[in-house]
Amino acid sequence: MSDLISKIVSEFVSPGQVESVSSVHNASKMAGMLDHTLLKPEATEAEIGRMCEETIRYQFASICILPAWTPYCVGFKAHGKITVCTVTGFPLGASPTNIKAAEAGQSVMDGADEIDMVINLGWMKSGHYDLVERDIRAVVRASVGRLVKVIIETCVLTDEEKIRACLLAKKAGAGFVKTSTGFHPGGGATAQDVALMRRTVGPDMGVKASAGIRTPEQAQIMVAAGANRIGTSSSLKIIGVK
Amino acid sequence: MSDLISKIVSEFVSPGQVESVSSVHNASKMAGMLDHTLLKPEATEAEIGRMCEETIRYQFASICILPAWTPYCVGFKAHGKITVCTVTGFPLGASPTNIKAAEAGQSVMDGADEIDMVINLGWMKSGHYDLVERDIRAVVRASVGRLVKVIIETCVLTDEEKIRACLLAKKAGAGFVKTSTGFHPGGGATAQDVALMRRTVGPDMGVKASAGIRTPEQAQIMVAAGANRIGTSSSLKIIGVK
Repeated sequence: MSDLISKIVSEFVSPGQVESVSSVHNASKMAGMLDHTLLKPEATEAEIGRMCEETIRYQFASICILPAWTPYCVGFKAHGKITVCTVTGFPLGASPTNIKAAEAGQSVMDGADEIDMVINLGWMKSGHYDLVERDIRAVVRASVGRLVKVIIETCVLTDEEKIRACLLAKKAGAGFVKTSTGFHPGGGATAQDVALMRRTVGPDMGVKASAGIRTPEQAQIMVAAGANRIGTSSSLKIIGVK
Repeated sequence: MSDLISKIVSEFVSPGQVESVSSVHNASKMAGMLDHTLLKPEATEAEIGRMCEETIRYQFASICILPAWTPYCVGFKAHGKITVCTVTGFPLGASPTNIKAAEAGQSVMDGADEIDMVINLGWMKSGHYDLVERDIRAVVRASVGRLVKVIIETCVLTDEEKIRACLLAKKAGAGFVKTSTGFHPGGGATAQDVALMRRTVGPDMGVKASAGIRTPEQAQIMVAAGANRIGTSSSLKIIGVK
């Protein structure tokens, strides 16, 4: 394991980031990097409620849920510190731009703190980069200052397209780029993609690794590769509680 | 194969429907029951355009695409008879009700003829049946007379919930119930579910079987079980063209 981290570190990571790799062995520091995530469409109110309580208890970075649950989760702000993250145009990214913007705006009105949106992958693959950028920008504007994370769904993009998508997200004013929805059969985050995304956006933008991260080791690898946020349903396992 | 059809027919299907089983061996009749479907988020404009041409050439019931492609597909109405079907709240069904309604309304304004919406499965599993019905009704109203198909995602529901979801869709004024999104790891249409849905909604409402139907035999089984529309990406193979 530590060999694998070293390999990735030596290939991809700057000295400043190496330091953070060892420090995130601290569970509470790691908790603060995890978006505690439940995006199964059939998840019940009781399951979502339990996740909210866990988010408050362990001080995860956020709870990440589907938009119709946002008002319910925001209600937990009465019980403790909780950041509510929801998704927009998720997971296919192919709603019309005005509908994605309306969905983000509704989420803000419902009290969401963070918005994870999916780019229009069909437009991306068809070379309509202007439309992709306008689509991201519309969601960023509708989110009026809330943190927007732009999911580029790395598994369907070439390396050139990954770089291009990250630059479009940066240009459009988003706060983060994010690897994956977790719903595409092509797969989730890889350390290589995270490193590529970190290199592309530089140190001032966030990089969120998501999908397939289920152990402390995998989480540490993603941080080593340049991620400063991790989306996972295995948050309790990652911080050693379960 | 014919044994399997007979078994399903004897278990589930009325005499009037048995007749249709043999008649759909006719490829052009079968084509008229197929929604020619491409919902991969990374599908390109060129692929979508080819699907439109095939829909016109073989007179499939519709082309079924993600909403951002609706204006492009509607443009093909200049070239021949084509029914454009798009999706709403797809595939997770968990956008806020007003956003699902807005998405359906935008699709109608973009020229869509049919709207396949997903119910809110989390509300369904949490017993919030009133919210599920209101959600469907809002989409039906926003679709102003266009055919609305209500996807109940059978693979996550109990039989009792399937029946209940069908009755809610009927009460809310939808034209069809539909088995599956094709995106849930739990799977797609089964003949048993189609038969249950047909029994529940009666003869005056449509039943669409979708996800996992890839051969003429599978399509015929679904029709035998009570489906009058089939959603598939294997339309050309099913009508014997490919």
